[in-house]
Amino acid sequence: MRAAVVGLGLIGGSLAMALKGYPGLRVTGVVRSENTLRKAVERRVCDEVTMDPMEALAGAELVWLCMPPKAILSFLEEHKGDFRPGAIVTDVCGVKTAVMQAARALPETVDFIGCHPMAGKETSKLDNAEATLFQNAHFILTPRPESDLAHVALLEDMAQYMGFRDTVRTTPEEHDAMIAYTSQLMHVMAVAVCDDAELERCMGFEGGSFRDCTRVAALDVPLWTELFSLNAPALARSIARLEDNLRAYRQALEAGDTRLLEEKLTASSGRKRKTLTDRPE
Amino acid sequence: MRAAVVGLGLIGGSLAMALKGYPGLRVTGVVRSENTLRKAVERRVCDEVTMDPMEALAGAELVWLCMPPKAILSFLEEHKGDFRPGAIVTDVCGVKTAVMQAARALPETVDFIGCHPMAGKETSKLDNAEATLFQNAHFILTPRPESDLAHVALLEDMAQYMGFRDTVRTTPEEHDAMIAYTSQLMHVMAVAVCDDAELERCMGFEGGSFRDCTRVAALDVPLWTELFSLNAPALARSIARLEDNLRAYRQALEAGDTRLLEEKLTASSGRKRKTLTDRPE
Repeated sequence: MRAAVVGLGLIGGSLAMALKGYPGLRVTGVVRSENTLRKAVERRVCDEVTMDPMEALAGAELVWLCMPPKAILSFLEEHKGDFRPGAIVTDVCGVKTAVMQAARALPETVDFIGCHPMAGKETSKLDNAEATLFQNAHFILTPRPESDLAHVALLEDMAQYMGFRDTVRTTPEEHDAMIAYTSQLMHVMAVAVCDDAELERCMGFEGGSFRDCTRVAALDVPLWTELFSLNAPALARSIARLEDNLRAYRQALEAGDTRLLEEKLTASSGRKRKTLTDRPE
Repeated sequence: MRAAVVGLGLIGGSLAMALKGYPGLRVTGVVRSENTLRKAVERRVCDEVTMDPMEALAGAELVWLCMPPKAILSFLEEHKGDFRPGAIVTDVCGVKTAVMQAARALPETVDFIGCHPMAGKETSKLDNAEATLFQNAHFILTPRPESDLAHVALLEDMAQYMGFRDTVRTTPEEHDAMIAYTSQLMHVMAVAVCDDAELERCMGFEGGSFRDCTRVAALDVPLWTELFSLNAPALARSIARLEDNLRAYRQALEAGDTRLLEEKLTASSGRKRKTLTDRPE
């Protein structure tokens, strides 16, 4: 089986490396710059590397789109006629409704199955890619109702091979509502904390919690601007709920209501502990 | 030199272990339960362990109070006459104004110097103590104007020996204003996120950012109720500022203002990156 991984950045590069040795698979990387091409060859990221997407698509039974969100949307539009009949096409985009909508432009002969490998770090590009990036991460799939179940199973098998902790199938709408809270909100929170005028003065007084909570604030701006914009309503609702929950803590403190504070902390920390019991981290 | 570490919980236990081998130092642990006494002896946490604070205080040239905040305040009140003349007394409390105020009750022959080892984890008690807990952590000191500088230097030397990343001297008021933001706010944020009705449904869709940002939500409720209550005004102000900063992001999203969103993300992530350049994590 021939696979084309389009875009060898942090995610595409890590994905190609993590797929190395998958039985019967030969991977072609598709890149746009000679610089990335040279690096990909040097690091033996995949079996072949090309700068010609048409050539790669013509030969690929599996195509994995690993570019930023809007580049995936335009690639689908531009190359809708270039995929091999019978090909499985998938992606890595952190929002799924917009991608699944764009994929409707593809001919019926192509099986598009949305994917979201829930991994990343604050440094982008192939230089930072690593085969172990997906360890302990969730692999989310958003198949269409008409998707071939054998194709879905193949992607799940590959996810397992790449070291993902588990695979979850859901709808694009559910996915986007969930990750507004679990992922996008964490990034908004981290940058909002760094907007505080105290930030600079307070360095030297930060503990592990500060380092952990603001780690993702050093984000890839164009990528996250796209991700947030493509999921704006769900994310805005998540932020509003967090504002409400923070206000309740603030009001308990302002009222000097230690009993309410203790009750709230008992409930919240209990909810957190329950997630740890249900799914140890 | 004889030191008494009063309270062999997570912090006191780790501190005693980290001080092991400090030149010329002999450490007596003071505990309240036979269970902890037995464990401390088994794990050789310190040179001696006793359940009699009076005996330990009578012999100690250095006393390190490692109990929860309010227990430190009442210990100072109860034992103000029991410290050895010339003794250095210090503590580990995460708020400093209240402790420094309580220490005013001590006789002039005792040098009280507030300390805050900025380390911890979500599990408490001696079972979870470890000599390496303080690696990469800040050690904050709040000496009084009349403190003996040789005593301050001794504590700083011990902090270095225990593996702290650095030591910082400041005033109790400054300390409390700073940690309201760098530490307490991170804990409020983490519990507020876990108050979201979506929490349970969303497990399976969380990434590294969710795990990191909510890690501290599984907090020690009595301890953090005390810490928050003893610093309520500063913490409430920090929460209010975060609410404002979150609202600004929400409004940009609701307005569909991608340009403003990108500008805000550029500024915030730049502020975060600058802290990383100034002080690599």
